[in-house]
Amino acid sequence: MAANGCKGRLLSLLDYRTEKYIVAKNKTVGVLYRLIQLSIIGYIIGWVFLSKKGYQEKDEAIQSTVITKLKGVSMTNTTESGLLMWGPEDYVIPPQGEAVLFVVTNFLETPNQKLGYCAESPKVLDGLCHQDGDCQEGKLVVSGHGLMSGRCLHRDENAPGTCEIFGWCPVERKFKPQSLLTNAENFTIYIKNFIHFPKFKFSKSNILETTDVSYLKCRYDEKLHPYCPIFRLGDITARAGYNFNDMATFGGSIGIQIQWDCDLDKGYSECHPQYTFTRQDITASNTIATGFNFRHARYFKNSAGESYRSLYKFYGVRFNIMVNGKAGMFNIVPTAISVGSGLALMGVGVFLCDMILLYILKNGTAYRERKFEGSQQTPESQSGILVL
Amino acid sequence: MAANGCKGRLLSLLDYRTEKYIVAKNKTVGVLYRLIQLSIIGYIIGWVFLSKKGYQEKDEAIQSTVITKLKGVSMTNTTESGLLMWGPEDYVIPPQGEAVLFVVTNFLETPNQKLGYCAESPKVLDGLCHQDGDCQEGKLVVSGHGLMSGRCLHRDENAPGTCEIFGWCPVERKFKPQSLLTNAENFTIYIKNFIHFPKFKFSKSNILETTDVSYLKCRYDEKLHPYCPIFRLGDITARAGYNFNDMATFGGSIGIQIQWDCDLDKGYSECHPQYTFTRQDITASNTIATGFNFRHARYFKNSAGESYRSLYKFYGVRFNIMVNGKAGMFNIVPTAISVGSGLALMGVGVFLCDMILLYILKNGTAYRERKFEGSQQTPESQSGILVL
Amino acid sequence: MAANGCKGRLLSLLDYRTEKYIVAKNKTVGVLYRLIQLSIIGYIIGWVFLSKKGYQEKDEAIQSTVITKLKGVSMTNTTESGLLMWGPEDYVIPPQGEAVLFVVTNFLETPNQKLGYCAESPKVLDGLCHQDGDCQEGKLVVSGHGLMSGRCLHRDENAPGTCEIFGWCPVERKFKPQSLLTNAENFTIYIKNFIHFPKFKFSKSNILETTDVSYLKCRYDEKLHPYCPIFRLGDITARAGYNFNDMATFGGSIGIQIQWDCDLDKGYSECHPQYTFTRQDITASNTIATGFNFRHARYFKNSAGESYRSLYKFYGVRFNIMVNGKAGMFNIVPTAISVGSGLALMGVGVFLCDMILLYILKNGTAYRERKFEGSQQTPESQSGILVL
Repeated sequence: MAANGCKGRLLSLLDYRTEKYIVAKNKTVGVLYRLIQLSIIGYIIGWVFLSKKGYQEKDEAIQSTVITKLKGVSMTNTTESGLLMWGPEDYVIPPQGEAVLFVVTNFLETPNQKLGYCAESPKVLDGLCHQDGDCQEGKLVVSGHGLMSGRCLHRDENAPGTCEIFGWCPVERKFKPQSLLTNAENFTIYIKNFIHFPKFKFSKSNILETTDVSYLKCRYDEKLHPYCPIFRLGDITARAGYNFNDMATFGGSIGIQIQWDCDLDKGYSECHPQYTFTRQDITASNTIATGFNFRHARYFKNSAGESYRSLYKFYGVRFNIMVNGKAGMFNIVPTAISVGSGLALMGVGVFLCDMILLYILKNGTAYRERKFEGSQQTPESQSGILVL
Repeated sequence: MAANGCKGRLLSLLDYRTEKYIVAKNKTVGVLYRLIQLSIIGYIIGWVFLSKKGYQEKDEAIQSTVITKLKGVSMTNTTESGLLMWGPEDYVIPPQGEAVLFVVTNFLETPNQKLGYCAESPKVLDGLCHQDGDCQEGKLVVSGHGLMSGRCLHRDENAPGTCEIFGWCPVERKFKPQSLLTNAENFTIYIKNFIHFPKFKFSKSNILETTDVSYLKCRYDEKLHPYCPIFRLGDITARAGYNFNDMATFGGSIGIQIQWDCDLDKGYSECHPQYTFTRQDITASNTIATGFNFRHARYFKNSAGESYRSLYKFYGVRFNIMVNGKAGMFNIVPTAISVGSGLALMGVGVFLCDMILLYILKNGTAYRERKFEGSQQTPESQSGILVL
Repeated sequence: MAANGCKGRLLSLLDYRTEKYIVAKNKTVGVLYRLIQLSIIGYIIGWVFLSKKGYQEKDEAIQSTVITKLKGVSMTNTTESGLLMWGPEDYVIPPQGEAVLFVVTNFLETPNQKLGYCAESPKVLDGLCHQDGDCQEGKLVVSGHGLMSGRCLHRDENAPGTCEIFGWCPVERKFKPQSLLTNAENFTIYIKNFIHFPKFKFSKSNILETTDVSYLKCRYDEKLHPYCPIFRLGDITARAGYNFNDMATFGGSIGIQIQWDCDLDKGYSECHPQYTFTRQDITASNTIATGFNFRHARYFKNSAGESYRSLYKFYGVRFNIMVNGKAGMFNIVPTAISVGSGLALMGVGVFLCDMILLYILKNGTAYRERKFEGSQQTPESQSGILVL
């Protein structure tokens, strides 16, 4: 008997139980429910699957290496520096081909600075003085260039002067805005970008896999040469919406974004880099943060072993190559989450339609009695939330 | 007749079918089910929506550009280097305003090194010797400074000596810890940070959009000037919990994290940077990795064209500006996933209550018979898992 | 009476309503439904929970700081440069211990360049000429080294020559491939990596927390010393599948990836770095992008104050240390989403089994009549989608 009961129990495990429905021949609610069903199905297929690719596992942790190389020469002629020939070894800072690099377009040389005494620059507010008492001996000039000696230097006694300082003399003079490396816009930058998606073990490069050496004689163009990794600097700024020579005088910052949106379900060859160019030192109405410059010193020693230096104030365009990307590949987990939660939304539609059928329509009481078997309560007691 | 059947079928598609429920007048299970319902609704509203903002699409792939500029001067006076005036062009390495920068706070100069023969430093274990046989000619000293000549140099015959090497001579002497750029803590760093969220095409900068030039005379303070992008180095280390001068002698590494948590539903102006400062070269109980230094050489040529150099061992504080952020904006997909899976959790509550009602409570058999219509099995055969 | 009704309504809120099922004693559908149930439960437990850890909140926004330090010396002897001793201050570019660093393995020095007139390099296509007319005076040589003077220089009148240019003379000669810093493969790199997961406020370093100073005398080895942060360069390239000396001649790029997969539910000590090494300048069949070199100039001034320079073309291996990681910790939100959407998938099974039971099996009509109470339509009008 016990064995028999056990067997019966096990067999009944294989009985199929299906929910009992009551049919409400109400076209209003019926149509409404069908519409809700259709819009949820449309949302799952159209939005979640086609537009957002909800069936794919995503890898947004792209690994990327960027190597850059510039080409081009330019000649400058200034009173301080004389004739100078600029090659990539001079105008690219740092020279080792980084993803963030600076191209000198303009400079101000202060040659042959030596440690000694001279007048502070009149640009430094804290260095202005009327008399020796304004220059406290042994104190550093705030945002200045050296240590005050205690003397105030003027051209004539009534005019305001500047404190005498101990520092690298002579101090840098004022800058007359002009663009010196005039053909910097013709320099080219060769960008090598190697990417890797660790989750999918997928690697690619922005350089076509070809053995044709003439390929690297190209210039990037969205339409003609979208896979060319060599860019003319003037074209880059033009694509960002700015004229290179306007940026060259005071400098600026350009972002080169390489976007990899790879649908790995479509295969290796369908994963391409897309380049976008934006100016980064200008936001909506922000003007005080524009421009880009820094100073650099080259040190020398004379035959007596004394140090002297050339101070350079470099203005230029900073290129910031940012690589961004995501790869997607079919995976059952996100598919299940997308389908499952889409289907679960149907419950909202059922709840809504039940409310209308049972409590808003005229013959709701009759439906309520049929739906809720064995309820002895007054009909109005079955509030909607009960069947949620 | 066929047309009629078809029409009837189509019309019946618009009938609404609703599940039939049986009402169990059992207050215990009823109260339990209400409690489960309330806690799931509370979880969806409170946790998923309010706390985690589950209704928002997130963009965590922030694009960021950081430009830095330091100001301040310092003077040092050492026996080897004499009087020196340090400006940003000297103490900031690299000078071009990167997000990772190093500020020299202490240094050891070994001036006028020439290629030649001299004794290896006694700090190099592999260079110690007692007799010439310890110094194998033509072999490089491991972790040392040059090539062994085969001679062992001692002051007196019994004391241990060091091998003679061919290399840049004289070798660097031992370092006496002291902090040389004493007012480095008063240097200021101006951080320009431009961010962009590509998914939402949203850009912003940490610099206020103002035309008021006096704005950039500020110093950052969480309370007084939270939007000031200019930081005093001493304040940065203090906020990280360390005294600048303690770090200055042997160097260290400070992380400046700029956090952008942008709720784009609230609008452009509600997206602010938040700065946090942490010391990075010290973890829980890790002391062997602290400090930061590196060597750099400046090359010169004398009038005969022979090279000589000054070797600098720089100690200092490395600042690493990291930008992190996410933006969220209302989107129907994550909302649907959150609501859908929240509602689906109700199924767990239903399963639990059914178990209690049908198999734990006394009059479960009666409920089972009402719930499962047409079952002819013995009641105990309907195990709980069946109705999952 | 009204109060009574209200009380009754409130009490009925605590009645428990459970769905009514009909039992279909059909073993085929029953077995199918059990199989679907089991595979969904198996999927939730096995895949979502165990394999993908769907119960954890993830933080993939790892913050990382990398500090590097190289050790080792090498000696070179070339006709142009003579005997040279290379230390880290010379062969590591940049010297300040960055995460992206370049180790010189080979170089070509062009010493004592002065601004003046000389023949363009025959490597520059645009500088080749047959007669003076080919060299337009005052025009820059494209991808060349200077400004054409208008003269064409040949050895004898019939052979092709190159244009005379104004630039840094003499120009760089052709490179004879050879590896100069022969023992560069024995250099060691000490990598300090500090990580932080902001979401969980979790910090760690790749350096063991020990006070044992001999620990840092180790060399990394996957099996013997997996927590040793010091790597021999030759071992790194060997692990990436390349011979160091093959890469040394023309240079290359190696990625050192530090992977942190931290299951924070398991505790602090169970979060380890894993190192992987890959060559980055070679993809599948891409050969034109391989190699790595750049030029750098050192400037000098003679006693007359005239500038001259040494131009270095550096070949070498670029190391790119990339830190990647994610941390996971139990959290109720992703658990709820995973469980909820897994359970919701059961609805798909119910739908499928209902279809088979009601419309495919022989006695479907009988089941339909029991399932849909009060339907007066012809049986075939109840198409499957109705009960979705």
